[in-house]
Amino acid sequence: MPRYTAPTKDMQFILHDVLKATQSGIPGYDELEADFTSAILEEAGKLSSEVLFPLNPVGDREGCTLENGVVRTPTGFKAAFDKLREGGWPGLDLPEEFGGQGMPHVMRTATGEMFSSANQAFTMYEGLTHGASSAILAHGTDQQKATYLPNMVSCEWTGTMNLTEPHCGTDLGMMRTKAEPQDDGTYSVTGQKIFISAGEHDMADNIIHLVLAKIPGGPEGIKGVSLFIVPKFLVNEDGSLGARNGVSCGKLEEKMGIHGNATCVMNYDGATGYLLGEAHKGMRAMFTMMNEARLGVAMQGLAQAEVAYQNAIDYAQDRLQGRDVTGAKNPDGPADPIIVHPDVRRALMDQKSFAEGARAFILWGSSMLDRAHRLEDKEADGLISLLTPVLKGFLTDEGFDMTIKAQQVYGGHGYIEEWGMSQYARDARIAMIYEGANGVQALDLVGRKLAADGGKHVMGFFELIKGFIKENAGQDAEFDAQFLEPLKKASKDLQASAMFFMQKGMKDPNAALAGSNDFMHLFGHVCLGYMWARMGLAAKAALAAGASDATFYETKLATGRYYMARRLPATAMHLARIESGSEPVMALEAANF
Amino acid sequence: MPRYTAPTKDMQFILHDVLKATQSGIPGYDELEADFTSAILEEAGKLSSEVLFPLNPVGDREGCTLENGVVRTPTGFKAAFDKLREGGWPGLDLPEEFGGQGMPHVMRTATGEMFSSANQAFTMYEGLTHGASSAILAHGTDQQKATYLPNMVSCEWTGTMNLTEPHCGTDLGMMRTKAEPQDDGTYSVTGQKIFISAGEHDMADNIIHLVLAKIPGGPEGIKGVSLFIVPKFLVNEDGSLGARNGVSCGKLEEKMGIHGNATCVMNYDGATGYLLGEAHKGMRAMFTMMNEARLGVAMQGLAQAEVAYQNAIDYAQDRLQGRDVTGAKNPDGPADPIIVHPDVRRALMDQKSFAEGARAFILWGSSMLDRAHRLEDKEADGLISLLTPVLKGFLTDEGFDMTIKAQQVYGGHGYIEEWGMSQYARDARIAMIYEGANGVQALDLVGRKLAADGGKHVMGFFELIKGFIKENAGQDAEFDAQFLEPLKKASKDLQASAMFFMQKGMKDPNAALAGSNDFMHLFGHVCLGYMWARMGLAAKAALAAGASDATFYETKLATGRYYMARRLPATAMHLARIESGSEPVMALEAANF
Repeated sequence: MPRYTAPTKDMQFILHDVLKATQSGIPGYDELEADFTSAILEEAGKLSSEVLFPLNPVGDREGCTLENGVVRTPTGFKAAFDKLREGGWPGLDLPEEFGGQGMPHVMRTATGEMFSSANQAFTMYEGLTHGASSAILAHGTDQQKATYLPNMVSCEWTGTMNLTEPHCGTDLGMMRTKAEPQDDGTYSVTGQKIFISAGEHDMADNIIHLVLAKIPGGPEGIKGVSLFIVPKFLVNEDGSLGARNGVSCGKLEEKMGIHGNATCVMNYDGATGYLLGEAHKGMRAMFTMMNEARLGVAMQGLAQAEVAYQNAIDYAQDRLQGRDVTGAKNPDGPADPIIVHPDVRRALMDQKSFAEGARAFILWGSSMLDRAHRLEDKEADGLISLLTPVLKGFLTDEGFDMTIKAQQVYGGHGYIEEWGMSQYARDARIAMIYEGANGVQALDLVGRKLAADGGKHVMGFFELIKGFIKENAGQDAEFDAQFLEPLKKASKDLQASAMFFMQKGMKDPNAALAGSNDFMHLFGHVCLGYMWARMGLAAKAALAAGASDATFYETKLATGRYYMARRLPATAMHLARIESGSEPVMALEAANF
Repeated sequence: MPRYTAPTKDMQFILHDVLKATQSGIPGYDELEADFTSAILEEAGKLSSEVLFPLNPVGDREGCTLENGVVRTPTGFKAAFDKLREGGWPGLDLPEEFGGQGMPHVMRTATGEMFSSANQAFTMYEGLTHGASSAILAHGTDQQKATYLPNMVSCEWTGTMNLTEPHCGTDLGMMRTKAEPQDDGTYSVTGQKIFISAGEHDMADNIIHLVLAKIPGGPEGIKGVSLFIVPKFLVNEDGSLGARNGVSCGKLEEKMGIHGNATCVMNYDGATGYLLGEAHKGMRAMFTMMNEARLGVAMQGLAQAEVAYQNAIDYAQDRLQGRDVTGAKNPDGPADPIIVHPDVRRALMDQKSFAEGARAFILWGSSMLDRAHRLEDKEADGLISLLTPVLKGFLTDEGFDMTIKAQQVYGGHGYIEEWGMSQYARDARIAMIYEGANGVQALDLVGRKLAADGGKHVMGFFELIKGFIKENAGQDAEFDAQFLEPLKKASKDLQASAMFFMQKGMKDPNAALAGSNDFMHLFGHVCLGYMWARMGLAAKAALAAGASDATFYETKLATGRYYMARRLPATAMHLARIESGSEPVMALEAANF
């Protein structure tokens, strides 16, 4: 009953009309001609709609099962994973020397959105592998790369991230898992890790766990944490699989959603591990995975909002209930479709303007990552580092809210599992939590990123917005009033917040932290406002150039107007909350809650 | 692991310090002395914590099962239902002549909150029965009352509401279920109803279905709908149970939550029905149930927020992770409890200030209902009629959001079912949908209630707020600044919205409807702001009178300050959205979504 149609046209619009990919000067972007990207997106869309999406409710219903240490994935997952491998999707943006296709990261984000919309739980098996590959690429020895990467880039082997322990998640300095050095240069890893996505399953010949652990005698706390490669099966020198390592899945968690993904308790019992990167510098290596993973999770927020929205439109156009108050739209039928009702429109426009704005934001962010990596552009690197917590926190909070709005369009049917809307909401819920709960993202943003390099990157962001407005204002009074003025106002709210933090935060760090969540959301709205202004400009340009599909571009402008008029006013509320400072938040003694 | 502690002290504060129940002049309220209400609340709290709450995860895990037409409720539900009956809780506010205790409705709301917090799915079996009893009380013949009420008031028999059909929920005029008049004055009811909560189960000897159906030949649409009593077992003249009626449960729905409640597809196959109230006036009779049910659902929104909040506090006080940036609070431990972190505080204060404000709002609303019924006070009747959609829509939207915030405090553990937080969110989700989805509440508010009796009731509300501010301002500059000024500002935003609707709505009804959801939320915030100002005053008075538990009252003031400073600024955002009118919302052709 539910459907998923890949938003290829919208992605093409962002890549070409808005970001002007081929003219960006980023190495590799010259190949991203419209025909080329279209072919890739169409192919990924087909796999998503035809193979992955039909398995989404299957995964939700069946979940994974653990029997005698073996985890069985839901019916059909293994065959679909083979198809994903056959298409070369896992290595799309990974180096050609290890079997990848070396494309820009922006293409991975676009195709990844489709896979996640179609089946988030399934796509995570590949996503974790990509993150682990990136960490080995960045920090591994040549031998480690040669041993693991070819099979990981193809997803013949999958990967995991092992951070959390029962008593510590955010505060990893409290970690207890130990890695004892052995005479042969390996380590013996012992401890328990929890919440390990894709920790054990039946879709790959080997699983390469990246595990944070402490080498006894090292520094206290977070400074004594190192990262280890712990394969499920040891790899022989000739590349064949050797002995089973001392790592096993002790339990599968029963979760609110993403049932198709195996969330494992992993027990390490003297498992052989290989140091990845430097001893005691494990967090730095892990952050390579985490920053990438955070963008990936931001994308999941968008992805679930998109698929939920598509189904909400279908329902709103099909379901006959009540009449348009301004006159029947379906006079021959027993009632009008509910899309005629303004409050249903409001809910759909919230979703549409979010999904399209968020897509532009994350593709822009991904292109910034490419610019940082491929041009070693420090400014781009600083900006994407600043925006990563905004992307992760804002897109997943809002993305979840949008799935709830989509579910609401269905009325009672939205609450019934067979209609599919509940799963989108339940699956979307995790994205606000994992890879650093959104409170941690807000803390990272306000406590670290904002002041990084003397506040240079946030100042750069303000300059960017100011420059954009200056460059484009005064040419079209309507566009100025509908797009640029609201953006200017929202951006001023953001600046006032940053100013408040700077003035108060020195004396009272809680004054900034009490407003961190609001700041993250305020920042997110400004970014989406900026994206909508850019998309509005691009749509105007296309219309002026006589584009054949005028409706597409007019719809873009109308959707942008909606975001500006109805969503951006949130910035003033966030500013008011921020400016109320820490007193209201911190007034109570902990015992008096 | 999770816990529930009934908020009896907070309820006592609202009943006595704020609403001053015994001095209200409402018949029956003179009996509500503090000792008396305390005894009732303590007893209900005990039943909730000790009997109903332990069954909450059991109901979620086991759900209900249908086999050969028989629905089995989860383990322990039947015994708990017996205890509920033994305590006389179902008849607390129902007439003594049918075995009830005749107490004011406000006491039912208070105790009902506890039962719902402890186990929403379970409590619904009783709640639906109460609604059906109310409809029979209001519209039944003496004989119908005598036949059904004694057993329904005691919950020996339970009741249901049958409105929705597969193709119609909100738009009941499209109903297909038929009731053919028979020679003996009964009707033969045939059709299918869906989403029937407690439609079939094993906890009562008989189930009394109230069913909307059309008598052939009657008026078209909603004006031809009548209400019927359709018992599962026909009742003999001597009151004993007779033949099984032609009604059966065809299917149980798999839902996102409230698994312990049987959501049934009910098939009526020539079932014997008895007209309740007048022919073709079924909607009026059904509304007796629905208005009460809407207050009950509003209460559920609060109830799930409360239980989720209680567990979030416990976790925040126990979980050690990170350090207070202003200095360690638990220096001898490995880390500080996460309640030291400002963003965790923010989430907890959002929840606390909502739950306590919402409790005051709904108890105030319930006392208004008592005033309307027991004093036949038309003004109170008009005001509670206006506020019913605000209570239902605002408390359930916000209540659900609060369960999500509570779940978020748990980080990854919040997503794992065994910790209990997922259930509160999944159970709370339904309250936004049933008894009129919240979009329908917003429509009812803006499209009907606002203009009812020439706008008299909303004007009355504005006068009430204005009078309250005038009466209390100028005595304490700090209180004025912290409570009365924000309330005044928020109330002005509400008035400006109503003004906008009046000015634009005549020409363009969509201008009002496009802002209906925002108006409902704006209104809700003003009501909670008003409640916090009243609670603040009461707390000040208690402190001035030298109350022994100063901490309790100081905590009230601090929590109120939080609501005023951090939550009320939302009103300006809602006003801005409302004033953007219908154009942004309605711009797109339906086909261009």
